Amino acid sequence: MSHDNLLYAHSGGVTAVINASAAAVIAAARASGRVGKVLAAYRGIGGVLDEALIDTAGLDEGALERLARTPGGAFGSCRFDLPQDDGGRVMDRLFAVFDAHRIGWLLYNGGNGSMDAVARLQAEARRRAHPLVCIGVPKTVDNDIIGTDCCPGFGSAARYLATSMLEAGLDTASMVGSRGSVFVMEVMGRNTGWLAAATALAAGGDPARAPHVVLVPEARFDEEAFLARVHEITERLGWCAVTVSEGVRRADGSLLMEKSHDRGYVQLGGAGLAVARLINERFGYKFHWAIPDYLQRAAGHWRSATDLAQAEAVGRAAVDFALAGQGGTMPAIRRVHDAPYRWDVVAVDAAAVANLERSLPEAFVRADGLHVSAAACDYIRPLIEGEAAPPLRGGLPDYGAFAWTLRPRSLARWQG
Amino acid sequence: MSHDNLLYAHSGGVTAVINASAAAVIAAARASGRVGKVLAAYRGIGGVLDEALIDTAGLDEGALERLARTPGGAFGSCRFDLPQDDGGRVMDRLFAVFDAHRIGWLLYNGGNGSMDAVARLQAEARRRAHPLVCIGVPKTVDNDIIGTDCCPGFGSAARYLATSMLEAGLDTASMVGSRGSVFVMEVMGRNTGWLAAATALAAGGDPARAPHVVLVPEARFDEEAFLARVHEITERLGWCAVTVSEGVRRADGSLLMEKSHDRGYVQLGGAGLAVARLINERFGYKFHWAIPDYLQRAAGHWRSATDLAQAEAVGRAAVDFALAGQGGTMPAIRRVHDAPYRWDVVAVDAAAVANLERSLPEAFVRADGLHVSAAACDYIRPLIEGEAAPPLRGGLPDYGAFAWTLRPRSLARWQG
Repeated sequence: MSHDNLLYAHSGGVTAVINASAAAVIAAARASGRVGKVLAAYRGIGGVLDEALIDTAGLDEGALERLARTPGGAFGSCRFDLPQDDGGRVMDRLFAVFDAHRIGWLLYNGGNGSMDAVARLQAEARRRAHPLVCIGVPKTVDNDIIGTDCCPGFGSAARYLATSMLEAGLDTASMVGSRGSVFVMEVMGRNTGWLAAATALAAGGDPARAPHVVLVPEARFDEEAFLARVHEITERLGWCAVTVSEGVRRADGSLLMEKSHDRGYVQLGGAGLAVARLINERFGYKFHWAIPDYLQRAAGHWRSATDLAQAEAVGRAAVDFALAGQGGTMPAIRRVHDAPYRWDVVAVDAAAVANLERSLPEAFVRADGLHVSAAACDYIRPLIEGEAAPPLRGGLPDYGAFAWTLRPRSLARWQG
Repeated sequence: MSHDNLLYAHSGGVTAVINASAAAVIAAARASGRVGKVLAAYRGIGGVLDEALIDTAGLDEGALERLARTPGGAFGSCRFDLPQDDGGRVMDRLFAVFDAHRIGWLLYNGGNGSMDAVARLQAEARRRAHPLVCIGVPKTVDNDIIGTDCCPGFGSAARYLATSMLEAGLDTASMVGSRGSVFVMEVMGRNTGWLAAATALAAGGDPARAPHVVLVPEARFDEEAFLARVHEITERLGWCAVTVSEGVRRADGSLLMEKSHDRGYVQLGGAGLAVARLINERFGYKFHWAIPDYLQRAAGHWRSATDLAQAEAVGRAAVDFALAGQGGTMPAIRRVHDAPYRWDVVAVDAAAVANLERSLPEAFVRADGLHVSAAACDYIRPLIEGEAAPPLRGGLPDYGAFAWTLRPRSLARWQG
């Protein structure tokens, strides 16, 4: 049996450039002349288990271009961790699907957890003497994968959030009244403060400009120190702008956010309101708060050209690594030069990256835990640079809309 | 005493194009050759009372260009209604300031309440046989001023929100899991649903695309009908996207939002979470929710070129009306043709506009109260068209930063 088909799958939260990686994978696989069919999993690894596979041959060049500029995951994604203790049931099913569809290359786009899957799938292939070559394609707005300078998806979300803080800061400064005005923006980041740190770029190094305070999960929240800082700034300027990561915790380890009513799954969100209320209750300042939520990771209208180029580069490199048989690796961004920013792509071992999480280094957080450092800004600045504006239709981005037809199934139905 | 100076003041909430109106006023007043000094009030009418006035002569052509592209109100704004029952104390003070600074023209940029101030100030000038000519300059993201096709500021906020819903919809559709996914975006609109209606443009007429439900204050919230619709959509598509105006009310007139902890002033915000929780509690669907808050009215990076052109046009027209002695008027946008959209500027009587509020007409809300009509989309579509992208610096919009010097005061300090 010849395994000459390549399968691409998204996993986990999507980004503004994840489809650009997908389009780059498809184009590079086609261009190689060595790949039979380029397949995509419908809704991630769950789609592989369900044998829900799309033949991307239906995407002509124009459609690939539209795919590349469309935010979100056009093939669908899912949250699914490979189980460790199911007696190999899931692994058996995955390899059955690989065999049924002659899949010799699996390119798995995701974050830390996905790199664990890449490493385990590759190990399993070796154990089975199966021809599968499995490559990770890094992606996450959280920017928390180790072994890479940054993660595709982060630069665009960072650009969106820095722009948002810049603009909301100008608005808040306009509305200074007798009571003092506070603006709080809650950003994504369950365990790491990369996205929060990005908003510091809005200030351009001027401490009078927004944001005046940046709260990250790497620094435990000190309520009194925080309130004192907000008070000092608001009394001086008449206003104060605060960025808070959704995952900020108090000294006792508890989350600052209010508990959500969501059943079962702990859904973050609410740290922004918690902070705004604290300030209002103590000082009576008028407050506004924003939660961009999905807007920050889907902002295709305001992508960073650097981020887009990196998303495409890791997609192409993943195909190269796959065809070279470098299974169990992930293409990583390597920072070659700081200013001007230059980077290239190198292979790292997925197993060495898997399940680890890159936090803001200590030097990126100010000693008082209430802001990030100039070094953090220096690191992030090049990642948000360059325009990659979408074409417009009627004033709105002209994104693609895709309707997929699944390949015929040949296996028994998966009993999830 | 010759009153040959012109005073410009912002009032109320700011927008992405309010400074463009200001810059147009300044440029047109200079170009007329008939105006002595062009002054701007620092922080709105409160600044006039405080005799806090800026001489805009310090703004050279480059600075005016930067002003025009910068969101927020660069001169500061305030929320202040002219009192009716203070025995004329505020009026006396305002006219004392006009006289002290030889102000013969007042251009007052604001919404419904500001047009009331324009009408009353003009009436007062006539009563006093004072040379003041007072003109309103319309502005509000809420789009609720009557007598004009639309309000400068609305088109850009509408474009931002429609784009946001389009992008967040793509993200939500990517993340469909076994539980069903719901995305809720709360938008501004205390009493009117114009901004919520704008998000309907994201769907491009396709009922399968976001938003699937649009809740506006003009339709009372029917919980059961709403939940039934969300359930039907989510079971069919796997996901559902909802737009909710902050000011949506239940049949008994109570606000859907949860009461804010803010002291005194009733601050809206929370309708989005209230709706998301209702859905989650009934059906267990996973939910995400966004509150763009200030981001929607400050999005200078994504302004509508139509909106920008209209903001500049009403600024220029206000100067024309002022110099022509048409006191007590407001330049309004008149829709001359639908497709292609053509408009011009006409004078309307500020007194006829003052304190009224333009709601969505009945034909713009679907009969079931759960969405807006195609007619609403047809009305809004041309208002979000055209790009007016700012120049960039380091990936971020290169907005202006202004430090004002106040004119010397000559009156006794105002005892607010």
